[in-house]
Amino acid sequence: MSILVVGSVAFDSIETPFGQRDRILGGAATHFSVAASFFADVKVIAVVGGDFGPEQEIVFTERDIDLSGLERVPEGKTFYYSCEYGFDLNDRHSRVTELNVFADFKPKLDEVARQVPYLFLGNIAPTLQLEVRRQMVSPRLVVLDTMNYWIAGAREALLQVLREIDILMINDAEARQLAEEPNLVKAAQRIRQMGPETLIIKRGEYGAMMFDQNACFAVPGLPLENVFDPTGAGDAFAGGFLGYLAATHNLEPPALRQAVIYGSVMASFTVEEFGCERSRRLTYEDINQRFRQFKQLVHFEDIEFRRSDKPSFTATTAD
Amino acid sequence: MSILVVGSVAFDSIETPFGQRDRILGGAATHFSVAASFFADVKVIAVVGGDFGPEQEIVFTERDIDLSGLERVPEGKTFYYSCEYGFDLNDRHSRVTELNVFADFKPKLDEVARQVPYLFLGNIAPTLQLEVRRQMVSPRLVVLDTMNYWIAGAREALLQVLREIDILMINDAEARQLAEEPNLVKAAQRIRQMGPETLIIKRGEYGAMMFDQNACFAVPGLPLENVFDPTGAGDAFAGGFLGYLAATHNLEPPALRQAVIYGSVMASFTVEEFGCERSRRLTYEDINQRFRQFKQLVHFEDIEFRRSDKPSFTATTAD
Repeated sequence: MSILVVGSVAFDSIETPFGQRDRILGGAATHFSVAASFFADVKVIAVVGGDFGPEQEIVFTERDIDLSGLERVPEGKTFYYSCEYGFDLNDRHSRVTELNVFADFKPKLDEVARQVPYLFLGNIAPTLQLEVRRQMVSPRLVVLDTMNYWIAGAREALLQVLREIDILMINDAEARQLAEEPNLVKAAQRIRQMGPETLIIKRGEYGAMMFDQNACFAVPGLPLENVFDPTGAGDAFAGGFLGYLAATHNLEPPALRQAVIYGSVMASFTVEEFGCERSRRLTYEDINQRFRQFKQLVHFEDIEFRRSDKPSFTATTAD
Repeated sequence: MSILVVGSVAFDSIETPFGQRDRILGGAATHFSVAASFFADVKVIAVVGGDFGPEQEIVFTERDIDLSGLERVPEGKTFYYSCEYGFDLNDRHSRVTELNVFADFKPKLDEVARQVPYLFLGNIAPTLQLEVRRQMVSPRLVVLDTMNYWIAGAREALLQVLREIDILMINDAEARQLAEEPNLVKAAQRIRQMGPETLIIKRGEYGAMMFDQNACFAVPGLPLENVFDPTGAGDAFAGGFLGYLAATHNLEPPALRQAVIYGSVMASFTVEEFGCERSRRLTYEDINQRFRQFKQLVHFEDIEFRRSDKPSFTATTAD
């Protein structure tokens, strides 16, 4: 087993200006594991209710995702989330959040899970993230996602778990909020002093950035002709990112940059349809082709501009 | 003479969370020409009042910018603009706009100006932009900037001038507004059908994008530790962009991509201090070094992910 993910498996009702879906399979652990499964073997730690049936289970099993750590509470209901997006798809308006079986979730890791080298702590309460982190024997890499709600409401617990992870993934507003600093470069420095050696900033349609000890890496978002549903894009990004690292066992800076691209690739597919619809149909050719599209998107040739390149005033005019 | 720029020369009063300046030299033609002057010879077509004195003039003359097309109205006052920025510097709140001598500006081009090969039509009324465009004999490249105010209020005149230019530079909201299409890829296709062969979308701290016939190019913004004043960044971008093209006389796609980077370089310096303060002190070493920073920022190595790279389930776990 390569990757362990802890997070939500959910039913999502989503409305965007381009369509809507009712009670489709979603949740951070779902989007993450489907994306990561293209690169490495994934085991899910989560909880679902009696409404989670074969139709949902197949999304995982068709991709060989290990559900032996999925807790089932037959008398309960699966986490339910409903939201609505505005025209530019950057603004999400949450309508309903029903924690249901997730309210009493206490993740317990079996012996296999505790030994997994790569861990993704999806966006759940920092106290739960810490509990999971401390059950792990000696993970090679721990990546954590969180959100404004926990930064504001569970700051102490969050700061505690940040000391025990390697990579933090949040958006720019959350980075500014966590660091209490509006400048992103300074915010990144502060956040890296809180524990994570690497900070990845997700910027939606604007792409992603990565700050580590020596450098900053940035990739723009791939301009897409069809964007239907941004839900899960951040988790798919994390899945592509960590999946690639787990597959190659290479954590050097160039590999981290490639992992950011694979994360961007998987996120770009996720938003093209609702839920996991697009991701489930992906091929390796799709994935590699989009990786090349990112390469072409940002490619430019080196040059040095010399003063002598400037046309002289007298040479080009008669005045 | 390489480049002709038509646009505002102004006094700006600017307040940001990081400081403020009262009545400093600004305006699109100013920021553009200072940036472009590092690459090519620039002639300014604009109008100023009696309050424009030697202290302002030296900003142009020290960089050999040709002011022979600068109309002076001694009894009038120079265009005045006052604005305030919020904490994230993306939100500009205009306080005062006094057109002054600009209200009656009727740009008249002399014979030298009419022959210049590269033209930048700064953000002024589309009717004026069209008048200037039609005085030109046969420019090699015409770049136009505009804004939401004209897109909404002078749409017909704008559509007319768009048919006679090569490159349009606007921000994403303006592109969506002009095309009446929320998706940026589709909006770019529509705008290119309106006339300009190439569309450049300025995205502030998120960088820039370029759409042309065959491809899309994108560059993220360079993360800067000190951002004091975003005023003029778009015009400095245009100056670096068109300056580089005018210097090299190369309009092939790879040169356009490099020009976008030089535009981004010049914009990135502009925002580091108020007005033209930083740009005035630039050296070619500064400029080339920052070009290399952009290259490093986006660099990643090619790779093909193969299915066999995925560690097998049975090989890595005992369960």
